[in-house]
Amino acid sequence: MEDQVLDRVNWPHDLKKLSIAEMYDLAEEIRQVLIKSVAACGGHLAANLGVVELTIALHYVFDTPRDKIIWDVGHQSYTHKILTGRKDRMTGLRQFGGISGFPKYEESPYDAFNTGHSSTSISAALGLALARDIQKQDYAVIAVTGDGAMTGGMTYEALNHGGQQGTDLIVILNDNEMSISKNVGAMSSYLNRLRTDPNYNRTKEEVESMLSRIPGIGPNIARAAGRLKDTVKYLMVQGMWFEELGFHYIGPVNGHELETLIQVLGNARRMKGPVLIHTITEKGRGYEPARRNPDVFHGVGPFNPDTGLQFRKSLKTYTEVFGEYMCEAGSRDQRVVAITAAMTSGTGLSKFARSYPDRFFDVGICEEHAVTLAAGMARAGLKPVVCIYSTFLQRAYDQIIHDVALQNLPVVFAIDRAGLVGEDGPTHHGVFDLSYLRPIPNLTIMAPSNENELADMLHTALALGSPAAVRYPRGAGEGMAVTQERAILPIGQPQVLSAGSDLAIIAVGRAVGLAREAAGLLTERGLSTELIDARFIKPIDNGFIHNIASRFTRVVALEDNAVSAGFGSALLELLSQQSFKGDVLCIGIPDEFVEQGRVEILLELLNMKAESIIERIFARWPELASRITLELRKFGQS
Amino acid sequence: MEDQVLDRVNWPHDLKKLSIAEMYDLAEEIRQVLIKSVAACGGHLAANLGVVELTIALHYVFDTPRDKIIWDVGHQSYTHKILTGRKDRMTGLRQFGGISGFPKYEESPYDAFNTGHSSTSISAALGLALARDIQKQDYAVIAVTGDGAMTGGMTYEALNHGGQQGTDLIVILNDNEMSISKNVGAMSSYLNRLRTDPNYNRTKEEVESMLSRIPGIGPNIARAAGRLKDTVKYLMVQGMWFEELGFHYIGPVNGHELETLIQVLGNARRMKGPVLIHTITEKGRGYEPARRNPDVFHGVGPFNPDTGLQFRKSLKTYTEVFGEYMCEAGSRDQRVVAITAAMTSGTGLSKFARSYPDRFFDVGICEEHAVTLAAGMARAGLKPVVCIYSTFLQRAYDQIIHDVALQNLPVVFAIDRAGLVGEDGPTHHGVFDLSYLRPIPNLTIMAPSNENELADMLHTALALGSPAAVRYPRGAGEGMAVTQERAILPIGQPQVLSAGSDLAIIAVGRAVGLAREAAGLLTERGLSTELIDARFIKPIDNGFIHNIASRFTRVVALEDNAVSAGFGSALLELLSQQSFKGDVLCIGIPDEFVEQGRVEILLELLNMKAESIIERIFARWPELASRITLELRKFGQS
Repeated sequence: MEDQVLDRVNWPHDLKKLSIAEMYDLAEEIRQVLIKSVAACGGHLAANLGVVELTIALHYVFDTPRDKIIWDVGHQSYTHKILTGRKDRMTGLRQFGGISGFPKYEESPYDAFNTGHSSTSISAALGLALARDIQKQDYAVIAVTGDGAMTGGMTYEALNHGGQQGTDLIVILNDNEMSISKNVGAMSSYLNRLRTDPNYNRTKEEVESMLSRIPGIGPNIARAAGRLKDTVKYLMVQGMWFEELGFHYIGPVNGHELETLIQVLGNARRMKGPVLIHTITEKGRGYEPARRNPDVFHGVGPFNPDTGLQFRKSLKTYTEVFGEYMCEAGSRDQRVVAITAAMTSGTGLSKFARSYPDRFFDVGICEEHAVTLAAGMARAGLKPVVCIYSTFLQRAYDQIIHDVALQNLPVVFAIDRAGLVGEDGPTHHGVFDLSYLRPIPNLTIMAPSNENELADMLHTALALGSPAAVRYPRGAGEGMAVTQERAILPIGQPQVLSAGSDLAIIAVGRAVGLAREAAGLLTERGLSTELIDARFIKPIDNGFIHNIASRFTRVVALEDNAVSAGFGSALLELLSQQSFKGDVLCIGIPDEFVEQGRVEILLELLNMKAESIIERIFARWPELASRITLELRKFGQS
Repeated sequence: MEDQVLDRVNWPHDLKKLSIAEMYDLAEEIRQVLIKSVAACGGHLAANLGVVELTIALHYVFDTPRDKIIWDVGHQSYTHKILTGRKDRMTGLRQFGGISGFPKYEESPYDAFNTGHSSTSISAALGLALARDIQKQDYAVIAVTGDGAMTGGMTYEALNHGGQQGTDLIVILNDNEMSISKNVGAMSSYLNRLRTDPNYNRTKEEVESMLSRIPGIGPNIARAAGRLKDTVKYLMVQGMWFEELGFHYIGPVNGHELETLIQVLGNARRMKGPVLIHTITEKGRGYEPARRNPDVFHGVGPFNPDTGLQFRKSLKTYTEVFGEYMCEAGSRDQRVVAITAAMTSGTGLSKFARSYPDRFFDVGICEEHAVTLAAGMARAGLKPVVCIYSTFLQRAYDQIIHDVALQNLPVVFAIDRAGLVGEDGPTHHGVFDLSYLRPIPNLTIMAPSNENELADMLHTALALGSPAAVRYPRGAGEGMAVTQERAILPIGQPQVLSAGSDLAIIAVGRAVGLAREAAGLLTERGLSTELIDARFIKPIDNGFIHNIASRFTRVVALEDNAVSAGFGSALLELLSQQSFKGDVLCIGIPDEFVEQGRVEILLELLNMKAESIIERIFARWPELASRITLELRKFGQS
């Protein structure tokens, strides 16, 4: 391979020695690294390919890490990582022990603020900027946000506050015309008007000059007024929406032209007060498969870089099972509607969206609005299913309580990506939902242990007539075919999978598989385990609890949720009401944020694999270990 | 008293027989009812006085309850209640068993959707409107929101979605220039420009006409262009911010002129697509004390209607103790900043705001932004204290996890109005915070049992260097003076208030007072109670748990939070880790939404008063009852 510019670039200061032409070469080289890294590790590709020039220009113009760049969501920060000392670590992108797919302060001082969820960057940047003012320091703060994040209310909250405060703050609105799914909302149309009308592209100076050069109008005043009106309209309207919020609007700017970007960013750096630069970029630029299908290449698993084809998982995912059930439900009941917050394909709703466009709503990245919208629909007699990833549903916590549960409205929450999600890491693990949903009155909470149960639980939820949540994991299911007949599950009733007498393992959702393995290992060692699929986290039938309390002195609660306030905690509450005198061993996510990495690795790390589980069982009840005949030394090592 | 128009008006259809003059009389009569009701019961006065004419006009023009009116927050719905069959129930406003201070579907079909928290109305209204379309029904949906709610991101999310959907929807932006505190944000300035510039008040037609009548311009084109530019600017800018979001903007409209309101609402009713009507009203109109001090009369306790003076509580409130501590902390440490979400006075921060204006931030009703802003400030080296009521902090749940705790940033959450809040009822009780905060890693959670402990806990939180939450109740403290010296509390260590041997009661925050009373009653009956102020909900010292587990077989956990996933649940988790073989009795808010009413009444209803507590103790441990010498029949009745 011939000499690469990238060989000479490790840090931002290396950029400052390059010519513009070299920077363009660098951009292409970085694109190759991005494609190669994401093809190998999975990750976000399309957004990263779109901001290569913008990132180069930012690090060329600004003095990082003294100046602070905050990346909204942060999935577009790969070029930033390459340019800030981490290009050699791109091979470990998103892997356990490797660099994160999101900005991470602990990883580099160039990552000024951690992100992962959408629409936080301007709030955080304003926080830094106001802190700078209070401490009488002097540095620039830049939030790089996107048109997708513009659908989130937090962005507006921060613009509204920032515009009033009037402090120096640069917001780059990186407009690539989509978030994850195709962008939605009136703001999206507004940005489109700014983008596409040639008059909107004129600078104020050009329009002023044009105004002064207007040819003789003659006697027809009205005609002149009309003409002037159109001209002035464009002058006034340009970015007016942002100007009214107190931001100086600059744009639109071609986000792939380094010369322009460097000039505009340099100007913005010298300006006082809040500035918004509207850049237009192309998602997936430089890689045809990603350019053509940016939604597919938003977040991808490993793929073949030559063809752009992803390595297909053999098993059907829970997400696909959900999508299929929704199509069935939509055809059976005209009242069923589906709502997603910018995750049409990610939540498996693409087919529903095509089949029932009038009953499908992608509202943008605004979980709060999504949930209250659903509440309104439920009040008016519909059966809305709101499908939001576990980690993002945290955004709508108040709306679940205040707008849905308090009115006991029949909204179904389909909570995808619950439990550990793997390579996306701590910002994305869905390990708090059981805890935060559990205290909410009127809410029924379920978790399926297989595909068929997912379909039955959704069916049960829709039949319930009160709020219900079904949470299920990311990725492949258990390989179980979904039967044709749908069952309505008895509310609060767990399912005993195998009877036993020495101990009971009560597991939730995906953890049932781990419990089954652990029970198998215990059986091999001569112990009799009652294996139970909890199915319901809330309510849990009192008769069941009584049965457990009267038959067992050893109970294991197993879940892929935080142990703190989670399912095990619910069992403890109920067992304690019945004065249970036995022991409960709660196994789940400990009270810490869990790193990124393959789920299997993380489970091992957390001592949640079957072998670790039985080790913990023996540590808790040594009498079980002493009763068994097999040689146990190998389990006693940790 | 002479004949009143109000005597003839019970329902909306009664309005339709009135002349405009009679409606004006009615408005004044309603104001008298409002003043009298709120003076007696407490409640929201200023906002209600402002919307009397608007409410009359709405019910005159629209056909409720077929047409749906959704009141944002809902504290301005009293006139609506008076006009929809509930005028005689105003004497029981906000009282236990009486009518709610907020719209309540269960109370009347005229209350189309329950509200209580800000900025939900347009989302809910859009949900109703879309459901109407899907079901091919025909009714109008009107959201009545305010300029305060415009600072909340959800409003923007809903406008953005509604503007795109294009369905028939009427939003009334009732602009009274303040939410609870004086309004903030750039949007507020924008509305102010719409309000105050006389040119902005022209209708489009007037401006068009004006344009066509422009006098001969002569040869000086530039001058003419300049003049036209100004004229056209006003034409174009009027409500443009809303127009760009897809709403047809009408306004500003004087919200006290019935003729205008009736005409404008009638027009809006006939228009297609989303319409926003900008009405200007005066908060507190018709009652001088409320007009002069609308923030004081936003939400008030009972007061003397002649003087407007509130009946002063004799004891200092926790809120006041917080406010005083903040002033101290602000003077001692320049890094301490305070952030409130439109609750400057309500959170006790008025003095801090005056003393340290550069370190005080009222961001508007946007809890999400407030928390992430604080995270940004903490990242940059400040010590932000975010003060938000417990029920509203639910709005920022994701930000607490994702932006603060995950980065382990030293943000202090001062959580006011925790536990039962009384007359504001189920939308406002702060009974979930311990449950939803408990699973969050890195977070320390405290609750003071008296004023001095509150100051020490805030002091401890600020010294901690990691995220901390201090939750404390609404209203009067315990009457304990705050000492001069501040202590840093040992993390995770409860305080034993009195030693005992028969049972331990471990109580949280305000519940310590109940526990003390219960312990007193038990002592009178010859039982020895160990009374413990938990102080910390998280972490809880393991040595303490071990001590309890080894010394007691009977433990009572007492809290004014949901039992589900609450403090008692935390104790169960820790005790179970130590194979505790005794019984734990968890007493707290049961798994239901709690009604409105005086806290004392609610505690009684929930069997949480001292007498009920000991009754529950005897029911759980009958051996205690049989051991005591006093006659117990009187406790065995419920």
